[in-house]
Amino acid sequence: MSQTNQRIDGKRLWDSLMGFAEIGATPKGGVRRLTLTDVDRRGREKFRTECEGAGLTVRVDEIGNMFARRPGRDPSRPPVLLGSHLDSQPSGGKFDGALGVIAGLEVMRSLNDLGIVTEAPVELINWTDEEGSRFGHSLMGSGLWAGVYTRDKVYALTDTEGVTVEAALDGIGYHGPEPAKPFPADAYFELHIEQGPILEREQKQIGIVTGAQAQVWYDAVVTGQDSHAGTTPPSARKDALVCAARIIDLVDRMMRARGEDGRGTVGQLLVSPNSRNVIPGEVRFSVEFRHPDDAELDRLDAQFPREAGFLARDCGVKLELTQLFKIPAQPFDPACVDLVRQASARLGYPAREIVSGAGHDAVYVARHVPTAMIFTPCKDGLSHNEAESIEPEEAEAGCQVLFEAVLARANRVL
Amino acid sequence: MSQTNQRIDGKRLWDSLMGFAEIGATPKGGVRRLTLTDVDRRGREKFRTECEGAGLTVRVDEIGNMFARRPGRDPSRPPVLLGSHLDSQPSGGKFDGALGVIAGLEVMRSLNDLGIVTEAPVELINWTDEEGSRFGHSLMGSGLWAGVYTRDKVYALTDTEGVTVEAALDGIGYHGPEPAKPFPADAYFELHIEQGPILEREQKQIGIVTGAQAQVWYDAVVTGQDSHAGTTPPSARKDALVCAARIIDLVDRMMRARGEDGRGTVGQLLVSPNSRNVIPGEVRFSVEFRHPDDAELDRLDAQFPREAGFLARDCGVKLELTQLFKIPAQPFDPACVDLVRQASARLGYPAREIVSGAGHDAVYVARHVPTAMIFTPCKDGLSHNEAESIEPEEAEAGCQVLFEAVLARANRVL
Repeated sequence: MSQTNQRIDGKRLWDSLMGFAEIGATPKGGVRRLTLTDVDRRGREKFRTECEGAGLTVRVDEIGNMFARRPGRDPSRPPVLLGSHLDSQPSGGKFDGALGVIAGLEVMRSLNDLGIVTEAPVELINWTDEEGSRFGHSLMGSGLWAGVYTRDKVYALTDTEGVTVEAALDGIGYHGPEPAKPFPADAYFELHIEQGPILEREQKQIGIVTGAQAQVWYDAVVTGQDSHAGTTPPSARKDALVCAARIIDLVDRMMRARGEDGRGTVGQLLVSPNSRNVIPGEVRFSVEFRHPDDAELDRLDAQFPREAGFLARDCGVKLELTQLFKIPAQPFDPACVDLVRQASARLGYPAREIVSGAGHDAVYVARHVPTAMIFTPCKDGLSHNEAESIEPEEAEAGCQVLFEAVLARANRVL
Repeated sequence: MSQTNQRIDGKRLWDSLMGFAEIGATPKGGVRRLTLTDVDRRGREKFRTECEGAGLTVRVDEIGNMFARRPGRDPSRPPVLLGSHLDSQPSGGKFDGALGVIAGLEVMRSLNDLGIVTEAPVELINWTDEEGSRFGHSLMGSGLWAGVYTRDKVYALTDTEGVTVEAALDGIGYHGPEPAKPFPADAYFELHIEQGPILEREQKQIGIVTGAQAQVWYDAVVTGQDSHAGTTPPSARKDALVCAARIIDLVDRMMRARGEDGRGTVGQLLVSPNSRNVIPGEVRFSVEFRHPDDAELDRLDAQFPREAGFLARDCGVKLELTQLFKIPAQPFDPACVDLVRQASARLGYPAREIVSGAGHDAVYVARHVPTAMIFTPCKDGLSHNEAESIEPEEAEAGCQVLFEAVLARANRVL
């Protein structure tokens, strides 16, 4: 039987996706499955039951990450990992995260159906709290696992009710015994919806994700002088909002000067005193830039404070700029990426390379394990929204590529 | 005795200003005397007592405006009016409004001291609720008097506790019997602090106010599409905040193109969803332009929607612009203005002509009665602020000009 005749079951995958979407379903067709809540627990129980039904052995680590193992022929080989997350945004969709986990389950079932014994073991992962919606800290499970955060710090985080992460883990019975830390693994594959418009616009069925963007985030405070809008002539104005407006325009122009790979956004802005006939004396806002290339992000990070400072000086106001963080680009493993590329080509799916603009568990896992991601298109690029939507054939295509990449990696000749 | 030897009493004026500032005094040196509250009642009672002590006859109209009359030699002549308001902003200063009323009281006392019988009667007015801070409707007393508003509408306005204007008038005993409507009057003079930086910057002691600016106010709503800041490439963005920023810059440039007479302000702005890593889908903001010249304001009003529309089109977003109101410039009476000019020159005070940028009771009174205003400088142009401050000699100079203009008008040969 040639590899391309080994097909996952698209209908079973879709039914399973819809089954999980009932857990925390919202009236508008979305999902509200906040991490470590009772709804999350129900999702986890269903996941555990279905994994065990597929013959997998489930273990849970100290942050609630779930690992479901299918043995390989050679137990000494490090496993091939795949997965994503089952938690959702407060008004989330059915597919963000869930697709990668449920498609992983379908990969396991198909391996069973096809009677395949892989050389290496295969492990399916449900990472805890990718979204960060409840405790304000995204990529919590994979971040702790990857050593980005410390356990004490993560355990002490609280939700708006004052419940700590540790108490929430105990509360749903997912405070597992295993330490959350990297173990020998051969590769990690994660299927996810794009959460952007590029694949749909270009009518591609598969995004071959080559890595994640570098990012730099700032807080900006412009201080002028609030004064009467009617009595203050142009020469006496120190309008903080006019300066902020010019900086917003600068961010947009700097982004566009980098072509389609650039990202530059002011998402949050607050005006003070925010009264119709008072010239604003203070404006606080966020600025972020992203770019796939570290060198280009360095240039943005050098250019922006300088040019924003010129604008503030010209407006006669004071600008305070604080860099919140700067993280380098995370390239994925070329060999793993190539398995995704080969599978897409073999299957005849229209595909393109793409850099992930959003954060994903894969970005932290990639610090320790050769990693690749697969993107599927989503309708209108919409995500973090109850209207988030993909087509069954898109889920099937993504799952089929995942299946073939995992199988090829698990059977590779060492 | 030549007219320039008739001097008001600067010390008495200042002591009286400080005395009234004790009513509603705040710890930071300001005044909180919200209209039609018990604090306002105490200010009114003191005003009534001091007027009656100066031999004036006080009457109150149906909106609480207070008129204190000093008889003239010829009772058939229409009176010369002067005044301002005793109510304050929630965190107001000692001089906004109070200066014009207390200086009027000093004019009356000086006329008494100097044994002057004017040809025409002179009436000192305390207008109700100039500030609009409590019922959300500025220039209420003078506006009802001038027929800008109807009594039923004004009476039904409520404060944040649900108290109506009518109930508040009854509550402090200032629901007077006189109808609030124009009566024959020869002139109206109002002394006020500038509430802007121009006189202080140019070291002028007197502002000869030639009129009030024309104004046009808009509400703007920019609608784009909120989307993920990391995954949405430049070509797919519909960033409402970038468009709003360009419109804010446009407002500022249009203002500056008119030189020192132009005013253009975005004071209020709200971003939605206002989240760091989400491209803003909607921005709502206020826009206002002011100019002394109606024709120039018409040009601003024609140019702005057109050019803002171009910016929105270029950004790929929708702009809805609603004109809230447009009011023409209110020129003051040339003969009355000239009396202010002559008095300043005679007294040797450095003076300049100025157009009022703020709203004042005089602007509505001017629709029915020949009107002029006198401005005095205020420290750093600061007003609507507890730190509002003027010098005793500035108050005295303004009061002396007021005295001479009122006296000249009341004694003019008909």
